[in-house]
Amino acid sequence: MMSSVAALDPTRRRRSDGERTRRAILREAASLATVEGLEGLSIGNLAAALGMSKSGLYAHFGSKQELQLSTIDEARAIFWRDVVEQAEAAEPGLAQVLALADAYFAHISSGTFPGGCFFVGASSEMGTRPGPLKDRVVEFALDFATVIRGFLEAAVERGEVSPDDDLEQLTFELNGIFVAANINYVMSRDPAVLELASRVLRRRLGM
Amino acid sequence: MMSSVAALDPTRRRRSDGERTRRAILREAASLATVEGLEGLSIGNLAAALGMSKSGLYAHFGSKQELQLSTIDEARAIFWRDVVEQAEAAEPGLAQVLALADAYFAHISSGTFPGGCFFVGASSEMGTRPGPLKDRVVEFALDFATVIRGFLEAAVERGEVSPDDDLEQLTFELNGIFVAANINYVMSRDPAVLELASRVLRRRLGM
Repeated sequence: MMSSVAALDPTRRRRSDGERTRRAILREAASLATVEGLEGLSIGNLAAALGMSKSGLYAHFGSKQELQLSTIDEARAIFWRDVVEQAEAAEPGLAQVLALADAYFAHISSGTFPGGCFFVGASSEMGTRPGPLKDRVVEFALDFATVIRGFLEAAVERGEVSPDDDLEQLTFELNGIFVAANINYVMSRDPAVLELASRVLRRRLGM
Repeated sequence: MMSSVAALDPTRRRRSDGERTRRAILREAASLATVEGLEGLSIGNLAAALGMSKSGLYAHFGSKQELQLSTIDEARAIFWRDVVEQAEAAEPGLAQVLALADAYFAHISSGTFPGGCFFVGASSEMGTRPGPLKDRVVEFALDFATVIRGFLEAAVERGEVSPDDDLEQLTFELNGIFVAANINYVMSRDPAVLELASRVLRRRLGM
């Protein structure tokens, strides 16, 4: 049903339709990038994947780089909604770390993106390519590490993690478990990989 | 100086020259693949990178896929020589695990390949691309895990690792440390990443 605001303001409705279209395009772009890479993403091959005209896509994104940057932003928004916000809804401390891991494993195995975690692929691809795309991927990695670190600090405050534990090391280890789980799972599509990763994580946290 | 065998057998010398040229081409191809991806590797762009003619490269590799498969084989030979064989030369057990880590960190930071570990990139890229390239990357990953596992079994026999430790989990963790070290190092070029990874590994092994 059309909302009353939209009915009263056709300009606003058109803007909102345009925004929905844009998000749908970017979601497809993020999916495609997990298979073809961010460099493999062009207005031409995205138009082909969507069955849209190239000129239609140019109206949304003026250049390949603008498309790539917007795709990273959309992938980040999806990751934040599916993984980080799920974890933030849990009890502070270790429960959030476990919820984060469960949400991450669900994110990579649920088929959100065919190539698993967008940011593992993007980090691997952008490592040797200085520029605004890499900067945005690095920004994601730092922000995600800060989220993990924040959960661990709450866990220390609650006495769930020893204050002698080095949180920089522990954050690195948890990140390593996530990355290895993603790469091994995407290669094998074997749920046992995620169960193994989950056991490793729980053992590391003394559970 | 020309060896006496080559002097007596010009056919053999030509073959050996051809083999050296082939290996030099493949080393460049492996480097290029760590920046452009294995899919970005074509006879055309490799010819451009080497300043060779495309027809000269076609004489060595009949197709893009043959070039890609040979490149994976060459990257594996380099990895085995630089990392696995270095570790095998150490005392069996935990000393081999530490030597493996040190050799791996040296391999990714020494500039062997501009994009760091060839196989982290290739695993990430090939995850969603079934076929002979992916099969060969998976084979590498399994063989490398078997090497780590073998070192750990020797460590258990020597009483350096508890027999209660789950070696499948520990192998996964060590692999995760390697992958995270590679991705973070390539992104940041910060040696502190490798020092952190090294501390994490030693702590995990109770050292």
